[in-house]
Amino acid sequence: MKSLSLRNKRLFTSSTRGIRTAVVLSGCGVYDGSEITESVATIVALSKKGVDIDYYAPDMDQFHVLDHTTGEEINQKRNVLVESARITRGNINNLRELDAKNYDAIFFPGGFGAAKNLSTFGQEGAEMGVLPEVANVLREARSNQVNIGMACISPIIAAKVFGKESDGPGVNITLGSKGANFPYEGSIEVAEGFGNTLELRDVNEMTIDNGAKNSYLVTTPAYMKDAAPHEVFEGISNMVATVLELSENK
Amino acid sequence: MKSLSLRNKRLFTSSTRGIRTAVVLSGCGVYDGSEITESVATIVALSKKGVDIDYYAPDMDQFHVLDHTTGEEINQKRNVLVESARITRGNINNLRELDAKNYDAIFFPGGFGAAKNLSTFGQEGAEMGVLPEVANVLREARSNQVNIGMACISPIIAAKVFGKESDGPGVNITLGSKGANFPYEGSIEVAEGFGNTLELRDVNEMTIDNGAKNSYLVTTPAYMKDAAPHEVFEGISNMVATVLELSENK
Repeated sequence: MKSLSLRNKRLFTSSTRGIRTAVVLSGCGVYDGSEITESVATIVALSKKGVDIDYYAPDMDQFHVLDHTTGEEINQKRNVLVESARITRGNINNLRELDAKNYDAIFFPGGFGAAKNLSTFGQEGAEMGVLPEVANVLREARSNQVNIGMACISPIIAAKVFGKESDGPGVNITLGSKGANFPYEGSIEVAEGFGNTLELRDVNEMTIDNGAKNSYLVTTPAYMKDAAPHEVFEGISNMVATVLELSENK
Repeated sequence: MKSLSLRNKRLFTSSTRGIRTAVVLSGCGVYDGSEITESVATIVALSKKGVDIDYYAPDMDQFHVLDHTTGEEINQKRNVLVESARITRGNINNLRELDAKNYDAIFFPGGFGAAKNLSTFGQEGAEMGVLPEVANVLREARSNQVNIGMACISPIIAAKVFGKESDGPGVNITLGSKGANFPYEGSIEVAEGFGNTLELRDVNEMTIDNGAKNSYLVTTPAYMKDAAPHEVFEGISNMVATVLELSENK
């Protein structure tokens, strides 16, 4: 136990089905990084199907570090890539190296890291920007028949990148529903304002956009609803299974 | 999205079955805290059964902070309780407040946090100590018909607290098996040396000790094996389901 051997290898070197997937993380913890249950749900669902998984995160400082018990800022710097590695047991790559063409499907779990590190929706709302590496991955995926799965707040990134206001085609996505159990419903209007179609969905539902030839964009609300952990886990499991089915049937 | 509302409430205020459980965390990340997939697996399995869950962690500095991509120490202080809250979305209590008598079952996921923060097995091996609050919780559980579920390296703590060398009865536990896929097999000999019976178990198996009247201790290897995420998830799900069944049938 005294010697720590980290394993920066791929967990799977080959897949029964030959499907290759990437998971893009944004830190470790809902309020300043990747939502942890959503990330684990994505990974477990992929692992269960026996597909190849490569993990990626941007090599940059987090926007900030929050004490998750109080919501107050901690005066520390933490790196998004390094913190994301907590979820993947050290197995992670620099997002800059992600070439979408190498994969059949790419997944973005949610958490405020998607809104503060991968984009600036959390800080700037409708004036948000998207990290260039993330925008490139999304555009390359849709141009190369690669499917995309997004959970929670992550679809706001696709809304910005592909929206008509950005001279894109617009996408059909969900950011959850409206009402007391959906504390972040304001994001829906912002995504509509970018020139997209928003569907109101519950935690156990998803929206499938097939507007790009052979690149499906599948979105599910996850913790956009104030749901129980197992509901979020199952909603994401279903989204992942759907994306993999769409990838198999190409 | 700009206003962050943390929710330090219990996720469940009542349970269909009236079973109350506690989960004890030790940080956030396998190499210096709680193993994340193991923690989420525990929480999702409990959530699925609709039982009450309260989360606890010690309010103390981590033994150290490791860069999970390199294994090197980061020169920062992090608090075990505050980091554990990343997994539970802010919903956590000071371990000092855990009164075992208030629960039907108490769970300890693994990760080096169990071996470095909840105990000193990671630093001292066979000379290890156990955090007094943790030892108290375990002793109170066994004296009050409370079941205990432990995964990965956590059972080393029960081995120390209940072993014959500590004037305990000795317990029947697993710390996984031996061989190439079990990198931490050295822990088995240490636990045996404390005066306990060790069973060799695979990731999808568990060991049930019923040596204390109406307090079962259920242990499963999880990442003591170099297993895939879904195998760890399912092994822990089974352990949790077993502990809950034993709690229902009292």
